[in-house]
Amino acid sequence: MPGNTFGQLFRLTSFGESHGAAIGGVVDGCPAGLLLDIAAVQAELDRRRPGSTPLGTTRNEADRVEFLSGLFEGKTLGIPIAFLIRNSDAKSSDYDALKDVYRPGHADLTWEQKYGLRDHRGGGRSSARTTAACVVGGAIARQLLAREGVKVSGYVSRVGDVALELVPAQLDSVWQSNVRCPDPEAAARMTKLIELVRSEGDSVGGVVSCVVRGLPAGLGEPVFDKLDANLAKAMLSINAVKGFQFGSGFASAALRGSEHNRLPQGGVLGGISNGEDIQFDVAFKPPATIAQAQQTVDRSGKTVTLEAKGRHDPCVVPRAVPIVEAMACLVLADHLLRQRSARL
Amino acid sequence: MPGNTFGQLFRLTSFGESHGAAIGGVVDGCPAGLLLDIAAVQAELDRRRPGSTPLGTTRNEADRVEFLSGLFEGKTLGIPIAFLIRNSDAKSSDYDALKDVYRPGHADLTWEQKYGLRDHRGGGRSSARTTAACVVGGAIARQLLAREGVKVSGYVSRVGDVALELVPAQLDSVWQSNVRCPDPEAAARMTKLIELVRSEGDSVGGVVSCVVRGLPAGLGEPVFDKLDANLAKAMLSINAVKGFQFGSGFASAALRGSEHNRLPQGGVLGGISNGEDIQFDVAFKPPATIAQAQQTVDRSGKTVTLEAKGRHDPCVVPRAVPIVEAMACLVLADHLLRQRSARL
Amino acid sequence: MPGNTFGQLFRLTSFGESHGAAIGGVVDGCPAGLLLDIAAVQAELDRRRPGSTPLGTTRNEADRVEFLSGLFEGKTLGIPIAFLIRNSDAKSSDYDALKDVYRPGHADLTWEQKYGLRDHRGGGRSSARTTAACVVGGAIARQLLAREGVKVSGYVSRVGDVALELVPAQLDSVWQSNVRCPDPEAAARMTKLIELVRSEGDSVGGVVSCVVRGLPAGLGEPVFDKLDANLAKAMLSINAVKGFQFGSGFASAALRGSEHNRLPQGGVLGGISNGEDIQFDVAFKPPATIAQAQQTVDRSGKTVTLEAKGRHDPCVVPRAVPIVEAMACLVLADHLLRQRSARL
Amino acid sequence: MPGNTFGQLFRLTSFGESHGAAIGGVVDGCPAGLLLDIAAVQAELDRRRPGSTPLGTTRNEADRVEFLSGLFEGKTLGIPIAFLIRNSDAKSSDYDALKDVYRPGHADLTWEQKYGLRDHRGGGRSSARTTAACVVGGAIARQLLAREGVKVSGYVSRVGDVALELVPAQLDSVWQSNVRCPDPEAAARMTKLIELVRSEGDSVGGVVSCVVRGLPAGLGEPVFDKLDANLAKAMLSINAVKGFQFGSGFASAALRGSEHNRLPQGGVLGGISNGEDIQFDVAFKPPATIAQAQQTVDRSGKTVTLEAKGRHDPCVVPRAVPIVEAMACLVLADHLLRQRSARL
Repeated sequence: MPGNTFGQLFRLTSFGESHGAAIGGVVDGCPAGLLLDIAAVQAELDRRRPGSTPLGTTRNEADRVEFLSGLFEGKTLGIPIAFLIRNSDAKSSDYDALKDVYRPGHADLTWEQKYGLRDHRGGGRSSARTTAACVVGGAIARQLLAREGVKVSGYVSRVGDVALELVPAQLDSVWQSNVRCPDPEAAARMTKLIELVRSEGDSVGGVVSCVVRGLPAGLGEPVFDKLDANLAKAMLSINAVKGFQFGSGFASAALRGSEHNRLPQGGVLGGISNGEDIQFDVAFKPPATIAQAQQTVDRSGKTVTLEAKGRHDPCVVPRAVPIVEAMACLVLADHLLRQRSARL
Repeated sequence: MPGNTFGQLFRLTSFGESHGAAIGGVVDGCPAGLLLDIAAVQAELDRRRPGSTPLGTTRNEADRVEFLSGLFEGKTLGIPIAFLIRNSDAKSSDYDALKDVYRPGHADLTWEQKYGLRDHRGGGRSSARTTAACVVGGAIARQLLAREGVKVSGYVSRVGDVALELVPAQLDSVWQSNVRCPDPEAAARMTKLIELVRSEGDSVGGVVSCVVRGLPAGLGEPVFDKLDANLAKAMLSINAVKGFQFGSGFASAALRGSEHNRLPQGGVLGGISNGEDIQFDVAFKPPATIAQAQQTVDRSGKTVTLEAKGRHDPCVVPRAVPIVEAMACLVLADHLLRQRSARL
Repeated sequence: MPGNTFGQLFRLTSFGESHGAAIGGVVDGCPAGLLLDIAAVQAELDRRRPGSTPLGTTRNEADRVEFLSGLFEGKTLGIPIAFLIRNSDAKSSDYDALKDVYRPGHADLTWEQKYGLRDHRGGGRSSARTTAACVVGGAIARQLLAREGVKVSGYVSRVGDVALELVPAQLDSVWQSNVRCPDPEAAARMTKLIELVRSEGDSVGGVVSCVVRGLPAGLGEPVFDKLDANLAKAMLSINAVKGFQFGSGFASAALRGSEHNRLPQGGVLGGISNGEDIQFDVAFKPPATIAQAQQTVDRSGKTVTLEAKGRHDPCVVPRAVPIVEAMACLVLADHLLRQRSARL
Repeated sequence: MPGNTFGQLFRLTSFGESHGAAIGGVVDGCPAGLLLDIAAVQAELDRRRPGSTPLGTTRNEADRVEFLSGLFEGKTLGIPIAFLIRNSDAKSSDYDALKDVYRPGHADLTWEQKYGLRDHRGGGRSSARTTAACVVGGAIARQLLAREGVKVSGYVSRVGDVALELVPAQLDSVWQSNVRCPDPEAAARMTKLIELVRSEGDSVGGVVSCVVRGLPAGLGEPVFDKLDANLAKAMLSINAVKGFQFGSGFASAALRGSEHNRLPQGGVLGGISNGEDIQFDVAFKPPATIAQAQQTVDRSGKTVTLEAKGRHDPCVVPRAVPIVEAMACLVLADHLLRQRSARL
């Protein structure tokens, strides 16, 4: 059954594979009358772009978004906003050797188990490249949210064993840091670790944290579409994510109620926003593709040694920040519209 | 917008409030021809029931499920299976004092912010009592899954600072432990901690872990409806849950790729099951309602001191085990059916 | 895949079979704060009830609706409103002879082709009895619409060859006519025809027409969820319906544009309401169950002669009027809420 | 709320306006492994194309479909198939005079009532041009259906007062007739009528009928997603459609049960296909845009005289045949996949 549409009232349908003609999407449900700042959408995309930070992959795609519909004289018409991003720098031949091999830690084998066939080039639709469509959709959602005074800010709070303990006082300097961490001292240590890991042909995991300010109270549904539940799904939809925690998160499992009741609740109670800051964390595993030789199996079941040739990120969290923000924006815009029918 | 239906092909619509006439649900999409073991459904419900373990609330509800439709001569007809559970032991008067007061850590205030009015008795629809409908729906899903050899087993892996490090070798003894932990030594320490906490009028958090065995490869959609993303949403839909991690989870954020690629992947790669065991953890905060006096605000904005009179759990995780399992069963049954249309 | 939920924002999930324990439904998405007039809901149900008109079946069910959830101090809470109607006068034994026989013009055989098994008693879920749940859902929707000044009025415009040519000037007297036709002269002829048909052990078809007054402009989506398209689906969801026409309908196929442009457009242009009266017609086939002996086949493929013993309507349109109205109310309430997110 | 996605398991999301950059769509849910004949898809599009018949508009668009995703080595991958059709021959300047005028019989005014703004060029998203996306989606669905032996055949059965009484014995010659009517004598009279109407600067309505052969029994859901109900919605989603009838349709309203039970049931009983031929009719109103001067209102409410300058069809039914077929294919493919989860 189709699983490529996200959201109910503000809805993104995503399409495209890593090495097909294009990736893109259709945003349906954006209200009419929004003056869309297309340069701002492109700027979001640039933040996610391969090559956007010296700490990421050297694959360098222009990633220009083209809008196909839904806009007239700069404004949204209330109808589908379709967009695409051509795949320009896709070195398919890098992947020829992978046609009959299943890379460890990738979806290669599970794809064949599911569909019986696959596009082996660059992970096909399982590539993180598909998140570019989320970033465009999220950038539109962000402009809708901005009108209500909502601000969504992600940042890197952990790379390997280098972690930030507290939410930084100010988050505006995130984009001045190559590692997307607003604390200069931690950023320097994270940068050093990523460079070390890359030099070793290895990779490393990390955590992206996100703060939402200015969200009105009352968003989220009380049972199945809790605001935090939909954020959890949104985050686990991002490639390489292995965990999500909201507010006090896993730490709360070790606490007493008398302690926990005194803490901020992460901005949600009973699934519904309470007007305070939203705060959550997203754990990313280390990229599975590394430059070291790895043992795996091929289609015939034979064990083979694999040396990856594609260009990959040693650590995904710096480039994941705009994706986390985009997915959060999609969830929040959806709930903002949903709330319009909660009362008479 | 409505948010009381869970799932796409195997779908539960839930209804009911803590102190209304009944809670219940409608399961739509269960295939025709399943011989439904109603006693087994009731047994699941009994495991969640207030009073099912001496470590929980003393509120004691019979919680008898009544089926209203969808069955004929013991078999599912392929049409909606409606069921209800009457609310028999609801002491509404316990809650009179809460009519104009917002309990800390509860959805009382956010409900009013959202809807403009609320049923203040026992949390209304935000009560964990609504999870009884999930348990019934999940019990039906479990019987569908059992036909395919799928087995879903939850257990308590943490209470406060008492934690189980490894997945227990065997999980069948979970229900012999009042605290729902299959490791006798850990179970004893958890029990002692909960009793201590109760005697102090306090509460404590914990973690429920879950293992799924026998799941076929190929379940889950590659982009937005990843199997792990839908499990994340399912778990965050449970009251008091603050975190979800899949496989290596938050620990993976501290690892190198060369280490992580050697670990089991939690049974999913790229959102799709690979035939290995599924493994995930769910963090529960300590219950907000404690017997100690707490400061809060009332409707007029005045600070008041609140002493809870209702009967509550000092720790929810023992009674949460069947809920975690039920939500997992709902997700897995849905994806099992979805997979039927993945290929020609 | 489940097909028992109707609507997007105002949504009815229906359950129940003709001879099961109960039929009922869950309305999800009704905004909070609506003071629900339960007697008015029951009154709608009484209009559909077997026995409500001397022209219908002699099966006499009390059809008392019981609300299970979603209401507090008389008002909607914004959460699911579950309700049920017990099946009290279900003579299952009437249907024993039908266990292995497929009645002509019924869903008996197609059910078995679809599901592999069926509840043969009274048509099971294919019985028109399931429309009682639609009437309750529609009655709630109607109260929401009434607040906006919307009025939905159905009436019988044809029985067999007795037809009303024009929309009657006033529609308030519909319920004073046993045949639900506001024109006394036509009503008398229709009544006579139905009595004749009944005396012959036969049945006859008819048309229910519907007028909606006071609907705001702007409801309906321009492409797939056109207001008239969703009304068409709603009407064809009613048992025995074989046709739907909107505004000028099939007659328009014979007209020139210069003529047609001068006519009223039925209240919709391009799928969107224009503030004028909505007008549409719904064709019902004659009931398939008649008192005359009919040839059919049994499970073994043998031709058998069937004489129906159940109590049935000679003409369904009088009792179909509240069902047509209810389905229309469901569609309109849904689009009323959907329109809330069309603009900034 | 978004209304641009059609179907549940086989799902088309449509986008684009008459004079925007492109129209197109995303088909999600087509099973993996279908060898897609792209030339056949283009051939379907050519049948709908402006200029495809001398009886239609003289607007001449190449309408080349470009596929962007979802295919690999000619086969469907089980993921979204995105496609677009560039708008090449869009004379926007034809429509400048319409910026502040609402054409009679069009959605111009209702659009502004709904969204507060509109793209006035050629009807924007309300243009019948958007049906090109349906034709592409339907052409993919048709190839899925063909594997099961299902054949969907539409034809013109009425233009103005020229009508075909019976279903033609053979339907293969439809495309040899400019008017898409397989009966040569009727086709000649229809052609003459359309040419007369065009010469008068007028337009005329008509009926498209459709026959489905080879459909398996068991498709369709018994209550809300009846096969005929979903076909009704599909057909009323097509521009200019005012009526839908299934099998015996409106004629059945005048019949006795003893007569009607002897007729074919149109291939559906109780909403579920019975393996016989599906047969339904779709009524189209005459195009509202005619070459004659018409009275209308402008934005200021002033009455103005309008003379249309765009190039339009005097009768839409010949070009509507592939659209009716395409929408039918979308419904049938969806139900074909839905049926896969009806039984154990």
